[in-house]
Amino acid sequence: MLTKAELQRLRALREKKTRESVGCFVIEGEKVVRELLAAGFAFEEIYGTDQWTGTRTHAMTHAEMAKASHFPTPSPVLAVGRIRRRPLPDSGLSKGLTLALDGVQDPGNVGTLLRIADWFALDRVVLSPDCADLFSQKVINASKGSFARVPVHSAPLDAVLARVATTTPVFGCDLVGEDVHTLVPAKDAVIVIGSEGRGMSLAVKRCISQFITIPRYGNAESLNASVAAAIVCDNLRRIRPG
Amino acid sequence: MLTKAELQRLRALREKKTRESVGCFVIEGEKVVRELLAAGFAFEEIYGTDQWTGTRTHAMTHAEMAKASHFPTPSPVLAVGRIRRRPLPDSGLSKGLTLALDGVQDPGNVGTLLRIADWFALDRVVLSPDCADLFSQKVINASKGSFARVPVHSAPLDAVLARVATTTPVFGCDLVGEDVHTLVPAKDAVIVIGSEGRGMSLAVKRCISQFITIPRYGNAESLNASVAAAIVCDNLRRIRPG
Repeated sequence: MLTKAELQRLRALREKKTRESVGCFVIEGEKVVRELLAAGFAFEEIYGTDQWTGTRTHAMTHAEMAKASHFPTPSPVLAVGRIRRRPLPDSGLSKGLTLALDGVQDPGNVGTLLRIADWFALDRVVLSPDCADLFSQKVINASKGSFARVPVHSAPLDAVLARVATTTPVFGCDLVGEDVHTLVPAKDAVIVIGSEGRGMSLAVKRCISQFITIPRYGNAESLNASVAAAIVCDNLRRIRPG
Repeated sequence: MLTKAELQRLRALREKKTRESVGCFVIEGEKVVRELLAAGFAFEEIYGTDQWTGTRTHAMTHAEMAKASHFPTPSPVLAVGRIRRRPLPDSGLSKGLTLALDGVQDPGNVGTLLRIADWFALDRVVLSPDCADLFSQKVINASKGSFARVPVHSAPLDAVLARVATTTPVFGCDLVGEDVHTLVPAKDAVIVIGSEGRGMSLAVKRCISQFITIPRYGNAESLNASVAAAIVCDNLRRIRPG
């Protein structure tokens, strides 16, 4: 039996402001909770109704779930995780492959980009502070479990890029640039993807060592941010040495 | 001044069933209506409030727009287009490049796939009957104007694929198959993308001449349907002759 205050606390974790102050996030839905558990994510609390067959730390009635949930049709499970902020490694972005997102605001895109980083085994994803919140339901849903597998950092992009721009290739995806098919092999590189609406910020653009573009054959004005990132990753991986 | 019946008719066009029986669809929002007008789409009716600065066939007050609209905050414009069903060319899918979607149900994916087909100048997109409805707001929004530029057909995929499978390469994207990087050049080809949840149907799989896969380096279980299609298109275009 949960108290009204406990149910309200769970419900409030859907708001970014509450998450930030409490240091926890909440996620609902059988599929996504199972994906995160399968990826080894250690939840703090798992609330399940009698329809939930997985592990749980607290039992909940359907009526309680309806009060805690933001879904019109509540799922049988709701889980609480701790927000962990990973510090960037001492080497910053100079080692390995990094996907850096500059103001990507659509949570579906941010989640899909984590999934792409996971598929292509990039070493990390860095989000600028104005990206969609990593700990939101939509981002985690779209990541299909990759949220729990890919190291994600939040950092002021221009500052961290400025520190590596002289030593590590920083590729910026844009509508004008070198053909992505001519990418030279790189063990260490940063791929920068700009915001859906306005592209990369000026401060980030100044840190780009090579603008790259995906050849266009037809009339679409642009490609979706995740689609562009995936094509760049495929090209970077195909020519990677070793 | 619009009658109650007229406002109800506009509102009802958001339902697929109504669209099918009336033969018209409705689209709301300044950005998307401008994208379609810029792409040369000829609307039957354009309803605009005094905040809409583009062409309009009917003036509407804000109060009327609020009644006709499905948006919590109605936009200044709402446009009605005729649903045109394009017959497949006599040669079916044997000539040029076709993107065939087998049960892609997420409207955002279907729209993004139209945008990809437009970017890579594919000759057409074919949707199986169980794909998300082409004439829905979400599909048209996600297509960013490509809805008006790419020839789209609806057809039972297994039947149309069976007719070309002996003469034209039919590539099926799957988790197991030939490395997409080894794709041989093809002037005529069909790229088949399966449903997000269950992949291609069995009947469609029987028509595939070559299964292809995108090399995976990390741990994500799969790639999003649009992302996979984009990588295949980039590889098919990069090695295309001429």
